[in-house]
Amino acid sequence: MSLLQTVVEGIEDLDGVKMSKAQKRIDALIKPVGSLGKLEDISVKLTGITGDMFPKIKNKAVLIFAGDHGVYEEGVAPNPQETTAVQTKNFARGLTGVCALAKQTGTKIIPVDVGVKSDINMDGVINRKIRYGTANMAKEPAMTREEAIRAVEVGIELTIKEIDNGVNLITTGEMGIGNTTPSAAIISVFGGFSPYDIAGKGAGLDEKGVLHKASVIKASIDLHDPNKDDALDVLSKVGGLEIGAMAGVMLACAYKRVPVVVDGFIATAAALLAYNINSKSKEYMIASHYSKEKGAMKASELLGLSPMLDMNMRLGEGSGGVLAFNLIEAATYMNNEMITFDEAGFTI
Amino acid sequence: MSLLQTVVEGIEDLDGVKMSKAQKRIDALIKPVGSLGKLEDISVKLTGITGDMFPKIKNKAVLIFAGDHGVYEEGVAPNPQETTAVQTKNFARGLTGVCALAKQTGTKIIPVDVGVKSDINMDGVINRKIRYGTANMAKEPAMTREEAIRAVEVGIELTIKEIDNGVNLITTGEMGIGNTTPSAAIISVFGGFSPYDIAGKGAGLDEKGVLHKASVIKASIDLHDPNKDDALDVLSKVGGLEIGAMAGVMLACAYKRVPVVVDGFIATAAALLAYNINSKSKEYMIASHYSKEKGAMKASELLGLSPMLDMNMRLGEGSGGVLAFNLIEAATYMNNEMITFDEAGFTI
Repeated sequence: MSLLQTVVEGIEDLDGVKMSKAQKRIDALIKPVGSLGKLEDISVKLTGITGDMFPKIKNKAVLIFAGDHGVYEEGVAPNPQETTAVQTKNFARGLTGVCALAKQTGTKIIPVDVGVKSDINMDGVINRKIRYGTANMAKEPAMTREEAIRAVEVGIELTIKEIDNGVNLITTGEMGIGNTTPSAAIISVFGGFSPYDIAGKGAGLDEKGVLHKASVIKASIDLHDPNKDDALDVLSKVGGLEIGAMAGVMLACAYKRVPVVVDGFIATAAALLAYNINSKSKEYMIASHYSKEKGAMKASELLGLSPMLDMNMRLGEGSGGVLAFNLIEAATYMNNEMITFDEAGFTI
Repeated sequence: MSLLQTVVEGIEDLDGVKMSKAQKRIDALIKPVGSLGKLEDISVKLTGITGDMFPKIKNKAVLIFAGDHGVYEEGVAPNPQETTAVQTKNFARGLTGVCALAKQTGTKIIPVDVGVKSDINMDGVINRKIRYGTANMAKEPAMTREEAIRAVEVGIELTIKEIDNGVNLITTGEMGIGNTTPSAAIISVFGGFSPYDIAGKGAGLDEKGVLHKASVIKASIDLHDPNKDDALDVLSKVGGLEIGAMAGVMLACAYKRVPVVVDGFIATAAALLAYNINSKSKEYMIASHYSKEKGAMKASELLGLSPMLDMNMRLGEGSGGVLAFNLIEAATYMNNEMITFDEAGFTI
């Protein structure tokens, strides 16, 4: 059995019995029932994921996957393509936005090259390059099915390694100039949306650029006709290597019963892939922030995820996920530090 | 000159020159311009408040004011009135929701009795009782003008003390069964809203209860005709002692140039009082979360504040403010840890 198959078949449901028990206790804490809102929901979910009535966050990691995109040559992104390689190195140097937030939350940064167009060769960046960027999906499939599987498996493999080393809260980040284009394509396919309703300005397209991007996505989908009931077909035809790897992280988290934070537009596309590979994986996801990218909300709704942060953020890199770690830890503090009316010895 | 007068007259504008400089540097950090959204806004604001290009959060505090409300006897709240005293003691015992979140963020909790109906007499609760609960505003003014001024001054005095002792990030909390009623009254008066559009379910009223609450607020406003151009008149006629003290905290923060987080429905009413005493105080405020209380959004809009957290929270106690401390610290990390394209020695 392949690694992917093992993981997909090994994903189980949340622990419903423990969740009921956790919900009951949280309802009995000294506060009006439900008044801590999503902190309560998260706390119950963490119990369902871990099976622990009083889970604590020990070690945190953000796995950041970098890859380039052949569709860049269609003019779908305003930045130079070399930015992917430069910023990937900057993750290892600790200089980017997500690095700053990781420092605040004590999060380990794990940059991985799964498909940058140039060689990175740098300590601190894990080399798992599958190919030098995807093919231009406007002309041919972005990658082969085998490459798509390998991308997902890279995410799985690295995630399992981190979890086995003690990490118990994970999020994903990405770097790939042009990658809101395959993300919008994936979301359009799974949701049956028009790309014109999903494609957004990415790192800074103008209105005309957004329309062009949507037309490229529409043409690519029309050309390949990806099968929405076969997530690997969608990934290989209109996806990205880093997006596949992110989906792998989410599947591995579900398999290993560790919560995974879904951060922004590209991660939501990856989450849709994971969900369509095994729908149970969704139960292990926690949404971080409302992305400013057009179509982000529609994508979150497909997954039934309700973000916690409204920060006008659109950096990517996993920055929203790492920021949300603060709130997930807050939920564990609520659960671990508050007591019930009974425990307090009074009733009001 | 009274303490209140000194503070009100001593509030100055933010440092606009430094803010422009901070904005310019943030725009030059290695990320797309504006892509860290509200973290950037907060960072610029912190520089405007402190005059420091690289402000850091040192010590954090939540000042929690407790007071009872004569209007309780009109049946505007579902909980027993003794809850105010019991929960005030629980703050000092470290057992409540805000205590759990304060533990996560390393925040000092300062519970203050400004108007609980019974004597508290407990170490850890500061006794600044002004009176044993307000009068029933449905029948008479909630308090005298002198008491209103004292309530504000208690907030000012305790805040200045904390800031002088090194606290540089503050939020307010409250405990007062029935206090969404005076809060809704204050918001209705300043915004010219119908109380039927502002009054919400508080700690758990049903639909009929909410309508009754709105009718009590409307009758109270009709009876006293508070002068919306005189915030102390509004506070004394339809306010609360703890709400006045919270307004005092906000004025003192502005006076001492320290950021203050506005948390939820009751704090927003207090913020409106502070704003109407000196409109410059608004510039020192940072909004935390969207309150689920009906009318909360309208109140935030009056102040032009845009919350960051969407947590379905309605606990009060300052819980949303303390939770938002995480995000404010994240903003300082962004500012202190990221470097500009120039500093990195490349341009992309």
